[in-house]
Amino acid sequence: MVTDSNAFDIDTPALLIDLDRVEKNLATMQKKADTTGALLRPHIKAHKIPELARTQIRLGAVGVTASKVAEAEVMADAGIKDIFIANQVVTTTKLKRLAALSKRVKVSVGLDSAAGAKILSDVFSAAGKKIDYVIEIDSGLNRCGVPPGLPAVELFSAIKQLTGLRFKGIFTHAGQVYGKQTLEDVMAVSKLESEIIVETCNCFKDVGVRPEVVSVGSTPTMRVWNGCAGVNEIRPGNYIFLDAIQIALGVANPQECALTVLATVTSRPAHDRAVVDAGSKVFALDKGAHGKEMLKGFGLVLNKNAVLERLSEEHGVMSLDSKEKLEIGETVRIIPNHACPVINLSDKAYGIRRGKVEAELLIAGRGKVQ
Amino acid sequence: MVTDSNAFDIDTPALLIDLDRVEKNLATMQKKADTTGALLRPHIKAHKIPELARTQIRLGAVGVTASKVAEAEVMADAGIKDIFIANQVVTTTKLKRLAALSKRVKVSVGLDSAAGAKILSDVFSAAGKKIDYVIEIDSGLNRCGVPPGLPAVELFSAIKQLTGLRFKGIFTHAGQVYGKQTLEDVMAVSKLESEIIVETCNCFKDVGVRPEVVSVGSTPTMRVWNGCAGVNEIRPGNYIFLDAIQIALGVANPQECALTVLATVTSRPAHDRAVVDAGSKVFALDKGAHGKEMLKGFGLVLNKNAVLERLSEEHGVMSLDSKEKLEIGETVRIIPNHACPVINLSDKAYGIRRGKVEAELLIAGRGKVQ
Repeated sequence: MVTDSNAFDIDTPALLIDLDRVEKNLATMQKKADTTGALLRPHIKAHKIPELARTQIRLGAVGVTASKVAEAEVMADAGIKDIFIANQVVTTTKLKRLAALSKRVKVSVGLDSAAGAKILSDVFSAAGKKIDYVIEIDSGLNRCGVPPGLPAVELFSAIKQLTGLRFKGIFTHAGQVYGKQTLEDVMAVSKLESEIIVETCNCFKDVGVRPEVVSVGSTPTMRVWNGCAGVNEIRPGNYIFLDAIQIALGVANPQECALTVLATVTSRPAHDRAVVDAGSKVFALDKGAHGKEMLKGFGLVLNKNAVLERLSEEHGVMSLDSKEKLEIGETVRIIPNHACPVINLSDKAYGIRRGKVEAELLIAGRGKVQ
Repeated sequence: MVTDSNAFDIDTPALLIDLDRVEKNLATMQKKADTTGALLRPHIKAHKIPELARTQIRLGAVGVTASKVAEAEVMADAGIKDIFIANQVVTTTKLKRLAALSKRVKVSVGLDSAAGAKILSDVFSAAGKKIDYVIEIDSGLNRCGVPPGLPAVELFSAIKQLTGLRFKGIFTHAGQVYGKQTLEDVMAVSKLESEIIVETCNCFKDVGVRPEVVSVGSTPTMRVWNGCAGVNEIRPGNYIFLDAIQIALGVANPQECALTVLATVTSRPAHDRAVVDAGSKVFALDKGAHGKEMLKGFGLVLNKNAVLERLSEEHGVMSLDSKEKLEIGETVRIIPNHACPVINLSDKAYGIRRGKVEAELLIAGRGKVQ
């Protein structure tokens, strides 16, 4: 059983962020970047909190990664000067906002098709500008991206004449790692990602092109990574908090997890059942990432022999060892399965240190889907 | 294949609410309440939108149901005068807010334990007030609530002397209906709920007590319900929009579904794969209610032979019939599996009528978990 204080004088459900652990997690990854010779560009989707992004920069991150233009805007407002949107941007409204954003801060954007490239270029070339683009390579997630190797170079060649674009490099996200079961599997995905990078860089070399940025990233692969020739940027996100999925993958332990949910028991309808005031509106329904089912419960309950078995929107139903005492009004503390959507569901979190609330942190990037 | 217009001049991802369908769904349920002799007290968790709550009242609803004090506060701010919080409220901060709310509007609250009753009563009796409470009966969901029949009367008797409480009635939510597979199963749950109500009311009758309110509710059971002696209030929520889960249960058809997600294709990495700009941050991960797995995809794609197979936070991955043409930049429209969490994830929705945007609707009750 994992234990930690759950005596906080705040109403529930509430998100607690252990600031000591955050700082340790950030320093560990920054050190990994420094020792492997890569720049760190953390994905802020994991926390969406301006203060934490600024801390990442202060500790040495070159800039941040965002998912959407709206997330990038929040980070620019927070004073971040260099933002990569690791996603395709194709709608007119967003492209206009992207153009406006590029006047304020350094922005680059993902790209995986000639059609998308033309849409992007048209907006920038009409304004007499260029936007930095980074080609997305599919390293096995089968989501977006061009296949590794030659196809990336072919896309580069096909769009070379577009006047609104400037080639910046290539990026991968080996998100399939979240479907793995063991640390060995995680390491195999990390190895595959490196091989794909080397293969693709070689294809670019054959045509005399050296991508300025070669970027990889996911927290599990980065936690086991020891560098790779050619890779000069890493983009983990979740590493700031870690969570029950990372524990299950073998790349984190509960004592490193920095985000927890504080909840209150509202009902004790049976000796082996306790209901808390946090359901899927707090925890989300993730039992793995990318929709995969990895875990049995919906979070790791601290201090109690209990499983968070079922979630309705406002109720968390825990099955309880019948010897456990747990009364109505008592609080419980739970490490969520997947920290990222938990952050996205709340407006604020409490920064805690050594059992005391130190700060209220506004999740300014919450809900920014456009 | 279900079809509908997807030509809207708004950025994506966006929630569309078909106002004609909403009005029809509301009128249908109001008529059911009227003809069965029950009052309608819709659960606003499904929409969380002040304007829609006011429409429900205007059409004949006696008041609304909310999940949390914070949701009730939003509804009180919206001018709703009679609010039932169908949940246990036990924390000090929330009880103070509940007391303040009870000075503004008529409020009642759920209760399922003597311990919870004492906590509740203490706050109100200290202020020389009484709060109306409604005993929650577990009608098979195995979440909160006392068992049907005698235990409800026993709880009533055990807390009778508490001076801060006033007994108002009993309520059930047969949410287990969302785990059913056929319309016959849905009808069986509805029948069971009625039997439980009759049994419990008889137990109260034996001690000379007549609950003022006897309240049942869930959209599937209410859609097949034809009244029940003793029940005088119904509390469906989802019926305002309906969704792919309701279709799967056999209690709705796609032409009745009023909430859809408009998304844009951002990537076409393979002939049978299209990626849209809406993922789990828009759709949530529900494949059934209460965490059950009922459906294969994450929503019902209109106008295309396509399945929304996988969701990452910002990506929806559709598998596509290879004959389907679907270009980067094109929009798709999708009926979500579960409308309620979709509403909770967005700040606003667009009210549409006959293919045109008519109104922007602020989801003022979003994220109100306390």
